[in-house]
Amino acid sequence: MAKSVRECEVTQWKNGGNDTRRDFVAVEEPLQVVVDGRPLAVLMRTPDHDEVLVMGFLLTEGIISTVDQVRRIDLEAKDNHALVFLIDDHECDWERLTRHLFSASSCGLCGKATVDAILQNHPPIDHHLEVDREVILHAPAKLRKAQENFQSTGGIHASGIFSQLGDLLVLHEDVGRHNALDKVIGDGLMQGLDFSQCFLLVSGRISFELMQKAVAARLPLVAGISAPSSLAVDFAKDSGQTLIGFLRPPKMNLYAGMV
Amino acid sequence: MAKSVRECEVTQWKNGGNDTRRDFVAVEEPLQVVVDGRPLAVLMRTPDHDEVLVMGFLLTEGIISTVDQVRRIDLEAKDNHALVFLIDDHECDWERLTRHLFSASSCGLCGKATVDAILQNHPPIDHHLEVDREVILHAPAKLRKAQENFQSTGGIHASGIFSQLGDLLVLHEDVGRHNALDKVIGDGLMQGLDFSQCFLLVSGRISFELMQKAVAARLPLVAGISAPSSLAVDFAKDSGQTLIGFLRPPKMNLYAGMV
Repeated sequence: MAKSVRECEVTQWKNGGNDTRRDFVAVEEPLQVVVDGRPLAVLMRTPDHDEVLVMGFLLTEGIISTVDQVRRIDLEAKDNHALVFLIDDHECDWERLTRHLFSASSCGLCGKATVDAILQNHPPIDHHLEVDREVILHAPAKLRKAQENFQSTGGIHASGIFSQLGDLLVLHEDVGRHNALDKVIGDGLMQGLDFSQCFLLVSGRISFELMQKAVAARLPLVAGISAPSSLAVDFAKDSGQTLIGFLRPPKMNLYAGMV
Repeated sequence: MAKSVRECEVTQWKNGGNDTRRDFVAVEEPLQVVVDGRPLAVLMRTPDHDEVLVMGFLLTEGIISTVDQVRRIDLEAKDNHALVFLIDDHECDWERLTRHLFSASSCGLCGKATVDAILQNHPPIDHHLEVDREVILHAPAKLRKAQENFQSTGGIHASGIFSQLGDLLVLHEDVGRHNALDKVIGDGLMQGLDFSQCFLLVSGRISFELMQKAVAARLPLVAGISAPSSLAVDFAKDSGQTLIGFLRPPKMNLYAGMV
């Protein structure tokens, strides 16, 4: 199997029944890009075709303009590192770059270390939130209905925080998935919501970074309409969070935890 | 109308016919977050509910743990700036943070300046690529078919580079939209493709950052299955690129340029 896909065990609920089966998730892992010894960026990427990824990144971020400005890309020196060596006389305005690039650096250079680094600052969640499955299955329709009251550009992400009984407490939208999540968490925080008694629903895919934000808010259950990444699944297993993906009534997939 | 949505003129093609009409796009603009004088991050966000966005961001990135650690958030001092003032004795490990956050700073602090800053380094595209509309309408099916050969986790983004005649030349997938794009551009670069004679198709939404990467590769035409953001539309108008959204045969929307 390609390195870009990983098998995982998932419990699918459908019409009241359970079915545990093998499924596939897209692999998500950090790649540290180092250019002539300078740590430039960490890309949360699917680990295949790293060489073309790095080459494209260098071009599209303005570090190179032709392929022959790259002397060598060493992918073997260290796991999840790309060591880039440019030609000797290559000129690049690093000062300008650091203002454009997310220079986010390694919170660890494999998936496991990345998860561990986060959980050092945010201890795992040790309480279980009992939510009726029917409540979870009804949440996407509530989110969609509330979104209609906002806008319908067709190009915007939504996040919603629901009570244990399924009331939509906070909803926000944004072109960025992370921002939509930060908005509901910020709003809930200012309202004094007890996140430990709430669950989160996001309109799209669930990446590592969304799980990281959810655990910072102590949200015990994260559900998404679409797929989780491999690192989101790993994260949920370690953080004690319940993770539900492909929440598309009458079906949903449980990747970690329980309800 | 909410600040989060903007009207724009769009040409819709459908079954061979043209229809120019008003449509809506989600607004995307940078927000510079400054904490006690320290520029921390630039969020490319939809400008509504900035206060809750910033509050949530501070919590989920580990800068605060309770709402009363924030003394004040000033959103009025400068456009697209959030000046955060924490309580006097607040402790925060900034060193750790800079490794987690994308500290990407202002390439300009309004949409227009952001676009200008990019186009200073990448001059606008001054040639037009003639592509038959039927070729564009057939591209999504080709991308999907090729994706099936790769994998089907349901949670992965794809980018494809097509020839003027509609041959799929390069395809890559990734959990990150930016990475999928960097992969096809890097691959094309290493193959010696002449991007000026190609067009790009992405599987999802089209943000400012995708347009920025496409212009760096000199791709004259960008199409997406889903919606562009307001800043992507602004960018295309200034960069001379053709921008097509909601490419869902038999329909597609032209937001900038021409075919």
